Amino acid sequence: MNTLGKVFRVTTWGESHGKALGAVIDGCPANLPLSEEDIQKELNRRRPGYGIFSTLRREPDKVEILSGVFEGRTTGTPISALVYNRNQRSKDYTKLRYTPRPGHGDYTYYKKYGNYDYRGGGRASGRTTVGLVIGGSIAKRLLEYTYNIKIVGYTVKVGKIEGDFTYYSNPEEFNIKEIEKIIERIENDPLRCPSSNSQEMVEYVKEAMKRGDSVGGVVELVALNIPVGVGNPLFSKLSGELAGGIMSVNAIKGVEIGKGFQSSELYGSEMNDEYIFYNNEVYLKTNNCGGVLAGISCGTPLVLRVAVKPTPSISIPQRTVNLKTGEEVDIKIEGRHDPTILPRVIPVLESVVAIVLADLMIRGGFIHPCNLEFNLQ
Amino acid sequence: MNTLGKVFRVTTWGESHGKALGAVIDGCPANLPLSEEDIQKELNRRRPGYGIFSTLRREPDKVEILSGVFEGRTTGTPISALVYNRNQRSKDYTKLRYTPRPGHGDYTYYKKYGNYDYRGGGRASGRTTVGLVIGGSIAKRLLEYTYNIKIVGYTVKVGKIEGDFTYYSNPEEFNIKEIEKIIERIENDPLRCPSSNSQEMVEYVKEAMKRGDSVGGVVELVALNIPVGVGNPLFSKLSGELAGGIMSVNAIKGVEIGKGFQSSELYGSEMNDEYIFYNNEVYLKTNNCGGVLAGISCGTPLVLRVAVKPTPSISIPQRTVNLKTGEEVDIKIEGRHDPTILPRVIPVLESVVAIVLADLMIRGGFIHPCNLEFNLQ
Amino acid sequence: MNTLGKVFRVTTWGESHGKALGAVIDGCPANLPLSEEDIQKELNRRRPGYGIFSTLRREPDKVEILSGVFEGRTTGTPISALVYNRNQRSKDYTKLRYTPRPGHGDYTYYKKYGNYDYRGGGRASGRTTVGLVIGGSIAKRLLEYTYNIKIVGYTVKVGKIEGDFTYYSNPEEFNIKEIEKIIERIENDPLRCPSSNSQEMVEYVKEAMKRGDSVGGVVELVALNIPVGVGNPLFSKLSGELAGGIMSVNAIKGVEIGKGFQSSELYGSEMNDEYIFYNNEVYLKTNNCGGVLAGISCGTPLVLRVAVKPTPSISIPQRTVNLKTGEEVDIKIEGRHDPTILPRVIPVLESVVAIVLADLMIRGGFIHPCNLEFNLQ
Amino acid sequence: MNTLGKVFRVTTWGESHGKALGAVIDGCPANLPLSEEDIQKELNRRRPGYGIFSTLRREPDKVEILSGVFEGRTTGTPISALVYNRNQRSKDYTKLRYTPRPGHGDYTYYKKYGNYDYRGGGRASGRTTVGLVIGGSIAKRLLEYTYNIKIVGYTVKVGKIEGDFTYYSNPEEFNIKEIEKIIERIENDPLRCPSSNSQEMVEYVKEAMKRGDSVGGVVELVALNIPVGVGNPLFSKLSGELAGGIMSVNAIKGVEIGKGFQSSELYGSEMNDEYIFYNNEVYLKTNNCGGVLAGISCGTPLVLRVAVKPTPSISIPQRTVNLKTGEEVDIKIEGRHDPTILPRVIPVLESVVAIVLADLMIRGGFIHPCNLEFNLQ
Repeated sequence: MNTLGKVFRVTTWGESHGKALGAVIDGCPANLPLSEEDIQKELNRRRPGYGIFSTLRREPDKVEILSGVFEGRTTGTPISALVYNRNQRSKDYTKLRYTPRPGHGDYTYYKKYGNYDYRGGGRASGRTTVGLVIGGSIAKRLLEYTYNIKIVGYTVKVGKIEGDFTYYSNPEEFNIKEIEKIIERIENDPLRCPSSNSQEMVEYVKEAMKRGDSVGGVVELVALNIPVGVGNPLFSKLSGELAGGIMSVNAIKGVEIGKGFQSSELYGSEMNDEYIFYNNEVYLKTNNCGGVLAGISCGTPLVLRVAVKPTPSISIPQRTVNLKTGEEVDIKIEGRHDPTILPRVIPVLESVVAIVLADLMIRGGFIHPCNLEFNLQ
Repeated sequence: MNTLGKVFRVTTWGESHGKALGAVIDGCPANLPLSEEDIQKELNRRRPGYGIFSTLRREPDKVEILSGVFEGRTTGTPISALVYNRNQRSKDYTKLRYTPRPGHGDYTYYKKYGNYDYRGGGRASGRTTVGLVIGGSIAKRLLEYTYNIKIVGYTVKVGKIEGDFTYYSNPEEFNIKEIEKIIERIENDPLRCPSSNSQEMVEYVKEAMKRGDSVGGVVELVALNIPVGVGNPLFSKLSGELAGGIMSVNAIKGVEIGKGFQSSELYGSEMNDEYIFYNNEVYLKTNNCGGVLAGISCGTPLVLRVAVKPTPSISIPQRTVNLKTGEEVDIKIEGRHDPTILPRVIPVLESVVAIVLADLMIRGGFIHPCNLEFNLQ
Repeated sequence: MNTLGKVFRVTTWGESHGKALGAVIDGCPANLPLSEEDIQKELNRRRPGYGIFSTLRREPDKVEILSGVFEGRTTGTPISALVYNRNQRSKDYTKLRYTPRPGHGDYTYYKKYGNYDYRGGGRASGRTTVGLVIGGSIAKRLLEYTYNIKIVGYTVKVGKIEGDFTYYSNPEEFNIKEIEKIIERIENDPLRCPSSNSQEMVEYVKEAMKRGDSVGGVVELVALNIPVGVGNPLFSKLSGELAGGIMSVNAIKGVEIGKGFQSSELYGSEMNDEYIFYNNEVYLKTNNCGGVLAGISCGTPLVLRVAVKPTPSISIPQRTVNLKTGEEVDIKIEGRHDPTILPRVIPVLESVVAIVLADLMIRGGFIHPCNLEFNLQ
Repeated sequence: MNTLGKVFRVTTWGESHGKALGAVIDGCPANLPLSEEDIQKELNRRRPGYGIFSTLRREPDKVEILSGVFEGRTTGTPISALVYNRNQRSKDYTKLRYTPRPGHGDYTYYKKYGNYDYRGGGRASGRTTVGLVIGGSIAKRLLEYTYNIKIVGYTVKVGKIEGDFTYYSNPEEFNIKEIEKIIERIENDPLRCPSSNSQEMVEYVKEAMKRGDSVGGVVELVALNIPVGVGNPLFSKLSGELAGGIMSVNAIKGVEIGKGFQSSELYGSEMNDEYIFYNNEVYLKTNNCGGVLAGISCGTPLVLRVAVKPTPSISIPQRTVNLKTGEEVDIKIEGRHDPTILPRVIPVLESVVAIVLADLMIRGGFIHPCNLEFNLQ
């Protein structure tokens, strides 16, 4: 239940206020060069304290690899890695014990498990995505090492403000040679938004934050260099596995691929991507499909968009019920919370894409399941 | 790969122009009353020939149960059921052998498998959803028998035309006592659309059909009476499993839950659903979340919306490439095709929802995994 | 639950007295030449009516392939195949409805499922191994086509009579060039026993049969040409998966690998197989390990021995209890039963070995998971 | 691949000479009282230094629980627990880098993974069973808490010396009221052997140790109080899952259930267990089947026997090949090794039985999958 992937499998564990959080990655082939720095780099991208909108909880999130790597390369055995929690302040939460916070998992966990860890959302907290990013960083490394695959996520909408830079507005810039330029722009923006109107979005978030409110948005994800043939019919489709993984990330309420919901407005003659022959190869002329046909990758960039709801933790008073007494009460969430999770959820979503791709590429025979040296011969 | 579900497992098999299509349902508990009629009723809802927009291929799709049912009740052993293909006309397809149809899986299957069944899309054809509906009809029966759960799907948008009847426009009508009225309206409309402007949608489709073109749309799905606590963190969330299953259905390009993409435009104070205490029970006052909090059902109706792309088969000429010769050619898809799959995809999508719910409810201890008599005690 | 294998997956279905029995094989790569004859040949080896000791139930067991094969080769989509039951005589069984037969699954199925198919053992009947042999025949074909792997099973003990021909008595005869000679001897013996004292065994069985009693024995299985490296630590070891699969076959009470239980009597210095260098390759000098070291194949022949209990159906009166009334009664099993299942269980056991090997070889990167043409390049 | 169980899932990680070893237990229901002491107690039973025959490597194996337990009870979220390695002496092993030790996994790991951790066997080392015992201790706790199930393992044979105390020699002592007496006798013997001739076995081991040789043996495992109905046909049978799990433990070469290989010598009339009616309940009169009929538990004690090969590490010179140079050389394993693993493998085998039972009992509806409070109502 806490595992993503079938062959390349990431099992995550840990709670918001437990001793530590981590992941076991099983099924990573041997001979991938891997260091703690490779993982740390991605953890830093989601770390509390990133950007101007992050929680004030200070966590170094320093990763330790405990197994599966020897002399700088993976051995084919399970990779266990963890970060210790340092800055828990559990007392913030005890008064919430029986009053579920609207929009959070408190109520559903309480009803499902009876005994649950109410401190900071326990296992339902966004903090548990640490394990996902550990797994994702290894998957990214594997994809880059074997196929030079690049996965990039960025904000395209904040609240009601649409950004002007999306895959479909600039498809030609999404090629392997220029992608680093886009990445630089993304990583230098506090909302990880490469649009020219990102400052307007920043003001929008600040305004909500001032009122104690929070903001949602839309993230776009693009992956380049995926070979043709990744994904299995019928129920391990590339599109299905991606949607399933992405919808398992906290705060996600929608996912679409290629033209997505907009494709429902098009005629078949507008939507279908025709084929051309160029340089002795078959290509799709356009990419309305977003990189997937009949659930299998078709050689064009993979394009996804993801709806992120506003952070449920707000300091505006909300009505709830004391589950022990039945009394209705108002609560104000104080703690330390991001007014929007947009910038920090991006490395998490990229991780899901990377894990799903790594898993399907091993399962599809694109990456050798045991030993990358066989792959590279 | 061709299995949906982990404990209640539906394995489908069959191709568009093979001898037969079917499914094996493993993990259905014993003592569920089940007959061929229960399955046939649902198969009839997706049968070729339904409504005014269906393919002219005439298939009775008469189901036979071959195992797993004895004296009118399930035995706990695998249920195998199939329908034989009767009206294949394979010669229609031979000339398409090496010229992949835009928008179809021809190209990706060819590259992935080398040898593939090009007749009518083979395994990528919508016809393979027969197996899914067989499995879905049993899942529906199980959910109704144990928890009186009802799942209903309907068209809310066709091309650019928005319908006026949706869950969020009429939440109060979506209760277990009145749902049959809505179902009746749905089943009597050629597009399975309960909106007052459905006739306008019909004209829209007819106009496209006349030009040899096709049309997409949006389907909404609602499930009532799901108990609190269904779905497992982190990677078997109710939302994740639903999105994964739905995105595995042919022609689906997007899925959202509750307010979905619209939730990204809301403030936290607008999006969060507050709690109330009523009749000695805790309830959500609103249902922006669409029935799922932190991936677990919360007692409100489950609400999903699904983007359906226009049928890729159109008789307008399209550019493609002969995969053997590299020559670019124009093709016109003749065969027998639906100008929109909206009405016929609805029972398929309902089936996915039913299978995912049945699976998660057994896995969550809501339905006894072996013997319903233990459940009912 | 009714599936063997994780990537090459055989899902079997059907009951002793249902309409049909069959299997769905998912995960067989495309481009394997396959015909109904390939499957029929193996089904004939386990068919009722084989040899002098078989049940008199006459079943042609004529297989039909319904999907997954096109123009004589697999397509990579699920292969569905079945045989119809022809010669059910259910009335034989109705009087056993509430009186469980000693040694059979009647009592445990009744307690587990409440509703069960009591006719001829239902799903617990040996007849359900039809599906396993269908899957096994395809796995065998795949192993032979890609690696020229041969799997051979034979009786080495009947009741208390030990045969004189075993792997360890004649290791040098078990090589790929001479194996057909051994197979011929096996297939020409009514107990599938290549030992010189097999006639003595036949008399032993006849004597028991005359008294209405039944007989068990030991089967040895050898597989040749398995490459080094098949099997995954820790819980998908070649040895573990084989033992798990074999212990799931009806009537099996023990399994051992290599020297097995005898190895517990040896000193380390006797048991360990030393390494030699020959023809520029590393080899094991002996094969006490039976082809597996640390759960992974090591290049020597795979050697297993399996304990088969006496057929529980005997016509000698036995004490049992009427589950409805609590009354103790004597029953005599009449029906049509084999005095020993030894010869007919051999193709079933070979099938398990073949399926486990095919599954682990695909998972280990030895066989391409989608398209054998990539394998053969 | 490193996971045992399907719903109650134990994923182990770690190598002999890595930083730490541990396990993640996913699928343990909430509200099980659990402390580090519960796990420590079992780890102590397999700890290096147990008894007179253990390796001199001194490891405290002090367990830390990092997640999944809150206020003394499980929360339903993954339980992560680990022990740090303290006493690695890697230099002992470097000279073995390219000379595989006979009987070990060195050669097969090297061929499979290319890059492997040669220090002390890496992942193939018996030390990796630490994770299995962590998982097993939690499974045992769960089984005891819910059904008062007791699992006991003990030596019944050492080399060629048969013990005089086995389940079949004393079936009546194996009842829930007297089992603690047997356990006490077992735990006080250096070979965990309750037979009266255990001193003779000790001398046998000492004699081999003196010569630098090693010894194997047979372990018997009995589990009491298992309800009727545990185990699923066809490929998740209780017998199949047990055999598969047990054969995945280091050094195991055979497994049998009930009368096992001996049953192959019996007539059906001797082997079948008749039914009796006593105290308003149906019982088996005898227990030749060893607690399992048609793969499902039948209410009698579960009885297994397991063949343990002699420890492959011996200090007598053995022939091997340098894998880099092809040169044949003699090696003497020095390091610190047990002359027999019998006493220390017993808690590991008990752990496998406990994990398999916990998993099948949750899957079979005997234990609530999410919340034990529902179970106990």
